Parts: sequence; C-alpha cells; structure tokens
Amino acid sequence: MTQSTSVNRRVVLAARPHGLPRLTDFRIEELPVPAPQDGQILLRTEWLSLDPYMRNLMEEVGPGYAEPVALGAPMVGGTVSRVIASRHARFHEGDLVLANAGWQDYALSSGEDLLALGDMAQPSLALGGLGMTGFTAYVGLLDIGQVQAGETVVVAAVTGAVGAVVGQIAKLKGARVVGIAGGADKCRHAVEVLGFDACLDHREPLLAERLAAACPTGIDVYFESVGGAVFEAVLPLLRLGARVPVCGFIAHYNEDALPPGPNRLPQLMASLLQRRIRMQGFIILDHYATRFEAFRRDMAEWVASGRVQLHEARAAGLENAPQAFIDMLQGRNLGKQVVSVADSQAFEPGERPSL
Amino acid sequence: MTQSTSVNRRVVLAARPHGLPRLTDFRIEELPVPAPQDGQILLRTEWLSLDPYMRNLMEEVGPGYAEPVALGAPMVGGTVSRVIASRHARFHEGDLVLANAGWQDYALSSGEDLLALGDMAQPSLALGGLGMTGFTAYVGLLDIGQVQAGETVVVAAVTGAVGAVVGQIAKLKGARVVGIAGGADKCRHAVEVLGFDACLDHREPLLAERLAAACPTGIDVYFESVGGAVFEAVLPLLRLGARVPVCGFIAHYNEDALPPGPNRLPQLMASLLQRRIRMQGFIILDHYATRFEAFRRDMAEWVASGRVQLHEARAAGLENAPQAFIDMLQGRNLGKQVVSVADSQAFEPGERPSL
Repeated sequence: MTQSTSVNRRVVLAARPHGLPRLTDFRIEELPVPAPQDGQILLRTEWLSLDPYMRNLMEEVGPGYAEPVALGAPMVGGTVSRVIASRHARFHEGDLVLANAGWQDYALSSGEDLLALGDMAQPSLALGGLGMTGFTAYVGLLDIGQVQAGETVVVAAVTGAVGAVVGQIAKLKGARVVGIAGGADKCRHAVEVLGFDACLDHREPLLAERLAAACPTGIDVYFESVGGAVFEAVLPLLRLGARVPVCGFIAHYNEDALPPGPNRLPQLMASLLQRRIRMQGFIILDHYATRFEAFRRDMAEWVASGRVQLHEARAAGLENAPQAFIDMLQGRNLGKQVVSVADSQAFEPGERPSL
Repeated sequence: MTQSTSVNRRVVLAARPHGLPRLTDFRIEELPVPAPQDGQILLRTEWLSLDPYMRNLMEEVGPGYAEPVALGAPMVGGTVSRVIASRHARFHEGDLVLANAGWQDYALSSGEDLLALGDMAQPSLALGGLGMTGFTAYVGLLDIGQVQAGETVVVAAVTGAVGAVVGQIAKLKGARVVGIAGGADKCRHAVEVLGFDACLDHREPLLAERLAAACPTGIDVYFESVGGAVFEAVLPLLRLGARVPVCGFIAHYNEDALPPGPNRLPQLMASLLQRRIRMQGFIILDHYATRFEAFRRDMAEWVASGRVQLHEARAAGLENAPQAFIDMLQGRNLGKQVVSVADSQAFEPGERPSL
C-alpha cells in the first residue's frame, strides 16, 4: 500500500490487549487528509518509531508518564515527518522534522513538539541512536549508572535499540561489557559486530551459572530493560555499590496480573542493603532539558568516528506496523525498530542490513 | 547476677536459629577474665547495644558487611566499656570508651576499634541516638533520602532506635512525618511525645487505605527498615522522584526461605520506572569517615536544644540480653534497646522511662 495524497491512513487501538498484543487489537482507518489552520503545520510521516513503552500506553490505566491511548484513537509514536503545508512562521514546506505524529500518514501540529532535523544522511536515526533510544542509553549508563573504566557492565537486550548503544558507550568508557540477548544469532552479532566481551543467550539453560562465569569479579552496573529471569540471574552477582538503572521491564509488559511466587521482593531488599546497591528508574523525557545537547554532541562524534555503530530493523509500510510492533515485543528485531511509511524510503541505498 | 572481678560471663551462639531466635539458641559461659598483653587493653562492659543486624550475623552465611558469628563464639555487639587495665599508650584505667566487646563482661582490645567517650551524662546514648543508630538515621534521611521542606516522609518502625530519630530530623527539616508502628501505645507515643503528624498501627486492618488517607499528596521519602506489608502499602503512594533509603528489612530477617507469591518484584520495577524512584541500600559503616563529624555536631546541638529526644529501652543484666534481643526483634522495645551490664548503671537516676 502506498501513501496517498488525499487519504490519511491511521492505525487505531481497536481493543486493549491481554498479554501480547494481537493484530486484531489494531485497526486501519482511512480519513481525509486534514487541512492546516492558522498556526498549524501539515506533516506527512516518513519514518515511524516503534518502542516497547507503547505497549504500556495500550492499557486502560496509563503508566503515569504519558496518557494511555483511547480506544479508537491512533496509536502514538515518534516520527520523522515532512512538512507538506505550513501556516506556521517557523516551519516551511519541505522541512524534515522530528515529530510525534503517531501511527498515521498525516498529522497536524502546532509546531510546539517539532524539532527541525536539517540535512541528515539517515533521518530515521533521529528516532533511534541519535534520538530517544540513544539518549536513553547515554543518560542511563552515564548519569544513573555512573560507569567507571575497569568496571563490569551487564546489558539486557543488548542487541536492541537501547542496549546496543549502552554496551558500546560502556566499551568506549573502558568497561568490560557482557550482553544478554535471545538467540545465538544476536549473541554472535553482539560479540563479532558490536565488539562486546561476551554475550549470553538467555534462552539457553543455566543462565545464572553462565553469567557468573562471564563476570568473575561480579557486576558493577546492570542496565535493566527486561526484568524476569535475567534480573534474577544478575541480582546475586551485583557488587558492593552496584548501580541498576531501570529503563524498562519488557518481560512483564504483557502480564495481566502479578506473577506467581515465590515473592522475590524481600530478596531484593536484602541485596540492596547488604551490597549498598542503588536502583533507579528513569524516564528519558525528564532529561531533555539538561542533557540532550551533551548527548547530541558526544553521540555525533562517536558515530562519525565509528566508535558507535547504529543498527536499524526496518519494516516497510504503515500497514505492517502492528506486526512489526508485535515482533519487537518478542525480541525479533536487531537494533532500533522503525517503519518506513513513505514508500520511497523503504529501501534507500546504503542502509545497513538487519538480521 | 552481678559482674564478677574474676569471671568473664559471655553469651555465645549455641545454635543457628530457624526463624525467630529462641533462648536455647544462646548459652552463657563463664571463663576467667583475660589479662592484657603488651599493647592491649582490658575492657569491662557497662552497656551493650542490641540491634537487628545481629540477627543476620547468626546465619551460617553472613550478610556480606560483617562476618557471621561462629557457633560457640560470643555474640558480637557494640558496647560502652570501661578500661580496667591498660598496656596501651593511648588508653588509661578508668577511661570510658565506645567498643565492640560483644555480649560479655570483659574483653581485650588492641585499641584500634575504640573511641574515647570522655565525660557523658548518659554514656549509653553513644550506642544509640548519639552513635550508630542516630548516625544511621542522619545519613539515611539526609544523604540518601535527601529530604526537603514540605515533603511527606513515611518512617517504618517509627518508635524504634533509628525510626524515632529519622522522624524527628525530618520534622526539624520541615517535612510532614507519618510514622508506622506496631500497637496503639507506640502510635500515641509517636504523635504525643515525638510530635509526628500521624502514626498508623500496622497491626490494624486496611493499612494501605489508612496510609493513603494520611498521605493525601503521596510519599516523597520512605525510610525502609521493615519490608513486608508496610512496604507493599507504601509502594503505590510513592511520588514521582521519591527516594527510598533501605537500612533494614526486619520483617524478613527471620525467614528461612523465599516467602510465597505473588512475586512483587515486577510491580516494584514498574513503580521504580514509572515514577523515577530511587531505592538505595546503605550500611552505616561506610559513612563514618566522611560524615560522622557533621552528624556528631548537628545531633549534639539538636539534643541539647530539645529538638531531638532520645529514648532508650533498658534491660538489666547480661544474662537477660537474649530475651531482650528476642523481644526487640518482635518490636517490644520503645527507642534504642540497650542492656546495662554493669549493675550500678541499671537504674541510674534521670533515665527516661520506656513503655
């Protein structure tokens, strides 16, 4: 399906999922392309970002940091969008902007939430390594995790959008990096392409034993985005004064109720106390005002010098966003998951292959 | 039983407890009073400190921050001790010192772990509000908890040695203080004597609902020393950016195995993330070098001006230390639990009554 100049396709929330979302929880609607009023900008979506936090916004009660998506409303999401028409002084037809247009072909904006992108060789990176997910990795590892040279950093979902950047920043700060990922292909990629010291497949047995062997001096920083069995394997290995930045817990996003026992909360408390561990949740929205400029400067330099590689998994076509999202929640992507919504961009030359 | 000049009574660990310790887990032995060698000091115990951490040292595998007590060895513990004989240049007969002589009448020391106390009106306070437990409250609330004026602070075990000081420091920093304690008498003491804004009896039903009503704007700092049901009531009320210093989890010290489900760890992770909560365990031993002088100066001023009241629960006689310890683990004390080991001190004039 191609983008039309007269029809706005949008993916709306058709039903609140129980557990892993299904395709029937989404519905594609077609509406006329809206017309901008005074002060408004009409945007056409070129790239749509798919991120685990969106699963939380599908619940009736939102996660607190953002409003839940209403039934029948379009799914929300960050986009790279083209200005098609503007009745706003600061934005002009043809401008490329970072926007929050959601899962649809067209959207109106008042301009307040737009960031001009200028010329970028690979604009979709503004949704990933050069944008929200890269920034999450940067703040989480450096500000919350306070990694030091010589320390051991364990990174969950290490081939994902955030994890891959966390691991690479940790390496260039002089840390030893042990990744955890689902599947042998991902682990090979983590070691051979991303250059991490080790990577463990959490689907194989004896994760706790293998992790202990891979971290002979224990773990100084655990970058948490997963929860579940991975955290249980990590907890006994956390060293005195360890830091645990928590940016997600994807293993539990699809749970409808508290999981069965035993209750591991007391064990966590005991570990926090005995080993003076600091765990801190963070939401990247809080940090743009103070840290985004430093991130943008550092990351641009690291990417330009090849010290950080940014990988993308690209789905083609807005109509395939629901399946790509469901796949991502099951860890089927390698790197940042985006959707090329404008057809001309789906197979642009020079893109990196995704596994 | 009185202290003898020739016999050293000591309370040794007779058996490792399962759950709450019993009197049969302890045994009193009598040995000759040892003689100091060159460089050594002979100490006679005047006051023995009883603290929840000691329960952890009764396990075969220690908590990490201190060695477990060996079977047949004397129980460890902080003491206020008198120098009886000295072959050490810095200490002299008659000096009163803060020591780690353990649960016994006499002990030898190399002097390295002694702190001269000078003249104190109430030397036992060096074990409590002016010592380790007061320092724990100070560092936990100010450094880890970073309380601000106008915030709501919830304090578990608020009539205990640490909690009562946490609450009083929070009040003098301009916070609203809601205590949690076991029993109506303690709650009355917390409000009427210690001056807290409210106190909830965790033994009464509907703790979660009552806590929500007592904290209409949520909780900014939760000072954790208990765990269990209290923490479960607190968690949903923690505000954005809340801090949770963890100095203990006494509700779980007597557990032999992981408690039954549901597993509340994922719920904790979700809360940490969504509300950017920082939880941090700390062990007060880590902070003496950097913060003890500031604590000593501030606390001396607060106590002298009456802004902080220090209450003690006193047991009389070393032979009663095991029962007093068991009682303390069940929350039967009000304020810091000490044992007067030197008989002359058991009922000194001017002591505050304990409930």
